[in-house]
Amino acid sequence: MGSPVQYSPVSRVVIFGGTHGNEMSGVTLVKHWIKNPSELRRKTFTAEACLANPLAVERCVRYIDTDLNRCLSEAVLSAPESESDPYEFKRARELNQKYGSGSSQFDFIFDLHNTTSNMGATFLRCSNDEILSEHMANYLKSRSGSQIMPCYNFLIDVPKKDNVYLQNIGKHSLCLELGPQPHGLTRADVLTRMRELVNYGLDFLDLFNQGKEFPSFDTDQYRVLSRVDYPRDSAGEISAFIHSGLQDKDYVPLKNEDPIFTTLDGEDLLYEGDKVVYPTFINEAAYYEKKVAFTLTEKVRWKVPALKLGTLADYQGCPN
Amino acid sequence: MGSPVQYSPVSRVVIFGGTHGNEMSGVTLVKHWIKNPSELRRKTFTAEACLANPLAVERCVRYIDTDLNRCLSEAVLSAPESESDPYEFKRARELNQKYGSGSSQFDFIFDLHNTTSNMGATFLRCSNDEILSEHMANYLKSRSGSQIMPCYNFLIDVPKKDNVYLQNIGKHSLCLELGPQPHGLTRADVLTRMRELVNYGLDFLDLFNQGKEFPSFDTDQYRVLSRVDYPRDSAGEISAFIHSGLQDKDYVPLKNEDPIFTTLDGEDLLYEGDKVVYPTFINEAAYYEKKVAFTLTEKVRWKVPALKLGTLADYQGCPN
Repeated sequence: MGSPVQYSPVSRVVIFGGTHGNEMSGVTLVKHWIKNPSELRRKTFTAEACLANPLAVERCVRYIDTDLNRCLSEAVLSAPESESDPYEFKRARELNQKYGSGSSQFDFIFDLHNTTSNMGATFLRCSNDEILSEHMANYLKSRSGSQIMPCYNFLIDVPKKDNVYLQNIGKHSLCLELGPQPHGLTRADVLTRMRELVNYGLDFLDLFNQGKEFPSFDTDQYRVLSRVDYPRDSAGEISAFIHSGLQDKDYVPLKNEDPIFTTLDGEDLLYEGDKVVYPTFINEAAYYEKKVAFTLTEKVRWKVPALKLGTLADYQGCPN
Repeated sequence: MGSPVQYSPVSRVVIFGGTHGNEMSGVTLVKHWIKNPSELRRKTFTAEACLANPLAVERCVRYIDTDLNRCLSEAVLSAPESESDPYEFKRARELNQKYGSGSSQFDFIFDLHNTTSNMGATFLRCSNDEILSEHMANYLKSRSGSQIMPCYNFLIDVPKKDNVYLQNIGKHSLCLELGPQPHGLTRADVLTRMRELVNYGLDFLDLFNQGKEFPSFDTDQYRVLSRVDYPRDSAGEISAFIHSGLQDKDYVPLKNEDPIFTTLDGEDLLYEGDKVVYPTFINEAAYYEKKVAFTLTEKVRWKVPALKLGTLADYQGCPN
């Protein structure tokens, strides 16, 4: 066992909703918290709530010109500004200026999302170098009965320099991806669940700031392997759809020769692969245009090192 | 028992999909049938497939400027054309010109829709004056096991002169409203169900054209009483959401003091009414902007008169 990873206190915390303007749990909660911030107060800090893409929220669409949650790249942030830039380029720079490395960077970012896929409460992270958020995910699991909505740890392993996601602009971050929920509407059960999770997350940060130590633990993590497009005809039109046996089966093992698509002529198309994989983001509405029918992951057991608050003397900095 | 209602043969049949461009069962099927029309061939006619709002389909949105399925009004159809008209006004006139009273009117219109509400297979009609489509609905019920997806007869009783719906431009029509399905994605189970229903509907028309008589029958019909908006704050923002006890309970009796909404402060709001009613279109994503949280209906038993093919001698015309 190595010594605990240490981070400095987490005092500047922001909760983004409406990064995609039609993912309504986050939109609704953040609008509520902007008017009623008392719920976001803890002993050691008060979190801020922010509508990340207010124009998209107003129009109840995912984005205006381009997906904001793919705009937080070094390329966009460092490019010279232009009047003809997509709205989301401008907004990405504003958000980075306020919460990211443009000023004194925020310590923790929550980014609240919904998916049409049956992914329960998915805790999405972009690096295992940073482990405060993995401890938070573990805390959320321990506090919230998985019978209400199962919890999953999800990793899109992207080098910091290639990261395009909004959560990336903070020192630490967690993206909550709750589903299934159609875009453009609010389900009370999903909203309640997201609200609980954010509150438990704030509690966790408060405990951490107050010096509570979190021991090492083992956990399962779903790590992205590849993305699978829909079958298409010669004109590029989708020619088959998610097989009814795969629909809603996010995180259920997929084995060689399991059906994955059905064509309109009634033909079943089968998965071919030696390795058991775990499909996720199955039939996510927003991913049709991204040419993603589902995302394959592998399930990996990993040991998360212990965590404690760093003192000025022994603080090692954020390894991220 | 009165004598059977008689109609002339149904030879010109069109199937509209993509009246709302992000309701994907109809979009997908109609695109397929345009390329592969043989499935729409019957002994006595061949149906045509038409994407009603192709630009909205291309962008995968409900509409471009305004809801096409509210544009088939006398006011829009008879107004002088203008370059500044909404796209859907122009499209409504084109469709009326081709399929409606603008030329030799089509005999039967299928209009294919999806809803995010848990409404199973809802057969939506706009008048009980016309009964061929009610016989079709009855035939669809008898052919397709209700265990797969329950079937409901739904009536929005609108005088012909006030009707704004696309299906209204035909002599006879049936709107298939299948759900739940999020907008912007295709579920294989819902698509398969819609395809079966359209095929049974074509079979029914073929039998009718060949002289088969359909006896009188009794059926339950859900008739629209009123539409209920979300509670709103002084700024007009929605302040409460569908109660989890009401979510997905379309067509389930709603009684006095049953909870219907939950506020973000955790307060339950109750239904007040002496009469048992049947909520429908609960939490339909597209109706937030229409200020409709759900639509209340009453359940009415009615006797549908017998139906037979009219001969030239005894043809009474379409009573609609």
